[in-house]
Amino acid sequence: MTTASLPGSPSPAGASSPVGRTLADPDTPFAVVDVRRVRRNVVRLRARAERLGVALRPHVKTAKSLDAAALLHDGSPGPVTVSTLAEAEAFAAAGHRDITYAVGIEPHKLARVIDLSRRGVTVRVLLDSTEQATFVAAAAREARVALPALIEIDCDGHRGGLEPDAPGLPGIARILHDAGCLDGVLTHAGESYFCGTAEARRTAARAERDAAVAAAERLRAAGLPVRTVSVGSTPTAHAADDLTGVTELRAGNYVFFDLVMAGLGVCGLDDLALSVVVTVIGHRPEHGWILTDGGWMAMSRDRGTAAQPQDQGYGLVTDLDGTLIPDVVMTAASQEHGTLSARNGAALPDLAIGTRLRILPNHACATAAQHHGYHVVDGTRGPAASAPVITAYWPRVTGW
Amino acid sequence: MTTASLPGSPSPAGASSPVGRTLADPDTPFAVVDVRRVRRNVVRLRARAERLGVALRPHVKTAKSLDAAALLHDGSPGPVTVSTLAEAEAFAAAGHRDITYAVGIEPHKLARVIDLSRRGVTVRVLLDSTEQATFVAAAAREARVALPALIEIDCDGHRGGLEPDAPGLPGIARILHDAGCLDGVLTHAGESYFCGTAEARRTAARAERDAAVAAAERLRAAGLPVRTVSVGSTPTAHAADDLTGVTELRAGNYVFFDLVMAGLGVCGLDDLALSVVVTVIGHRPEHGWILTDGGWMAMSRDRGTAAQPQDQGYGLVTDLDGTLIPDVVMTAASQEHGTLSARNGAALPDLAIGTRLRILPNHACATAAQHHGYHVVDGTRGPAASAPVITAYWPRVTGW
Repeated sequence: MTTASLPGSPSPAGASSPVGRTLADPDTPFAVVDVRRVRRNVVRLRARAERLGVALRPHVKTAKSLDAAALLHDGSPGPVTVSTLAEAEAFAAAGHRDITYAVGIEPHKLARVIDLSRRGVTVRVLLDSTEQATFVAAAAREARVALPALIEIDCDGHRGGLEPDAPGLPGIARILHDAGCLDGVLTHAGESYFCGTAEARRTAARAERDAAVAAAERLRAAGLPVRTVSVGSTPTAHAADDLTGVTELRAGNYVFFDLVMAGLGVCGLDDLALSVVVTVIGHRPEHGWILTDGGWMAMSRDRGTAAQPQDQGYGLVTDLDGTLIPDVVMTAASQEHGTLSARNGAALPDLAIGTRLRILPNHACATAAQHHGYHVVDGTRGPAASAPVITAYWPRVTGW
Repeated sequence: MTTASLPGSPSPAGASSPVGRTLADPDTPFAVVDVRRVRRNVVRLRARAERLGVALRPHVKTAKSLDAAALLHDGSPGPVTVSTLAEAEAFAAAGHRDITYAVGIEPHKLARVIDLSRRGVTVRVLLDSTEQATFVAAAAREARVALPALIEIDCDGHRGGLEPDAPGLPGIARILHDAGCLDGVLTHAGESYFCGTAEARRTAARAERDAAVAAAERLRAAGLPVRTVSVGSTPTAHAADDLTGVTELRAGNYVFFDLVMAGLGVCGLDDLALSVVVTVIGHRPEHGWILTDGGWMAMSRDRGTAAQPQDQGYGLVTDLDGTLIPDVVMTAASQEHGTLSARNGAALPDLAIGTRLRILPNHACATAAQHHGYHVVDGTRGPAASAPVITAYWPRVTGW
């Protein structure tokens, strides 16, 4: 594990390094990552990708951490997907040379892409229109740099992209090809986040593969060379049984997982690597509430499990060691207050003011985004077994 | 207006100062504040407080900006309310000497409060239990510092606090008084965020006042001196018609306002000072969608208007000048994608890729929290009237 130095500003609470202290030490709320779970999650998907015979291009948008990324490819800077140019620049500065920026490109952002390209970094851009292909091709010609582009394919009506049989697809590919910009096709089965059975996710994975491969074959049949055929989402990446024709698999959330993924059955609760340490600050027994200092500022406003059969509120509750406290849920949030309630007829535990707990989030990407970095634990205990020891601090890449 | 220097890290997109450029220049998404509206919102509530004969103690948790705070009290560092000790420390470092930390105190955070106290800063803490009063009193005695405390009073069952007639109230006040810690009482009408009529908010303001004043009078009758009687929320602060017995009024959101407040009728859409600049990155005409690069990472996951008669999705849409585009709503968000749709039978406007728009947020506190600072506009236009000029950059205080 890389032990990153603390970011200059902003630093975690207390302003001095938390490394070597325990989860009982920094002022709350703060984010914690269990690196043992990250390693297990990473190994699991890497093994799947190897079995399926595809390259893995993890999406770093969830952790946004160079330290977490160092675990993805056994320490070497392998291929990654990013959601912002700030991520692309930070990962490039750390030695990553093979980056896919998986958000539709617009003209203003090309200057930073070209700048990375001139520094020897491959940044694939994403597009789904003649308009975009035209300005990318023109920019590549004018700047005399490689601007490899992926055409976004829509497999499930979730967001952007062209359907594989869209009339405009070959024309877009031709514009890119003529400028030396055609790299391939990319699809993302965003609707798989609502597939509550393994069979539904397997079906979504097949549809994702079929859409990408059909688009690639259509272009190849038109004499347009397609190198990259990229698919992926955390649910489909863990369900795919045959990726014939696909060259690479993407997934991001799996590094941490979360209650949404556990609710779908993509992972178990024991796989959740991210949590937020909070402190009990009050009691309202007449309402059945325990109040904490972890509100939506610490957890995000994400209520991703609200649409699932088991609504988990703003998160489930564990003790400071990470052991689940059954039937206690974070049911409400204001900016710096969390409300814990019991369900299923359980009694609310008797927790003194000052007691520290951990909240498992609905949506790791959103909760992580509320923090500047992660206090990393690996199972090491303090001298008096007081609390898990913080063995590293991983700063996050922020901004755009 | 204070023109703050850019924060060292993280800096806004592009890493160099945006001041003097226009809203067409920085890569999107980024947050914008119209300082003319901030000034108007600040003047409006200050005039109300003066009419009502109470001091104003703005809550800085929304903007978390020293530059915004400089407008609150005509440039001098007046009394403020904070939601984190990070805010308390940042405001103390900037010369603020009169701070109320309005989240229930727990023992671990006292060290930082005591440290501020030793530097000559008054930091009032909040509590509602014998347990908290006991450790605050003990800490004040041990550290030999003033630790003024406010007892939280519950006026509407919203969150924490003791009801004004709670049996335990005088005992808590006595513990504080004996240690020189009793400052007063504080209440917050959190349920007023759901009061959709002026009359309902006026009633909530009276209930807030009545609860605080009744608690104060009860303590005074028991021989316990109460100095501060603090009430407030943005909806009640703008509705209160008589604050007899109250010494200070708190509100935070009003500096920026947002769609939730406009939906209640507390402000008009023209009062919203915060927005997020986004860029069109795609079209799905078959679904009735325009896609932008502003997702929940830029807007937050807050869906505060979902519970209002008019659900505004993730926000309303304006052009780059801030003029509302009628009947276009941000209806969906993923991490770095926003989806705009038309409603009420309106046609979706024809917006080329690269077009910049501004999104007015549901909840200013939550949207602001997704950004490191604000690009400030004041109506100044560029030389070719291309777009509003960025006249300042206001960094935010972040973390805990």
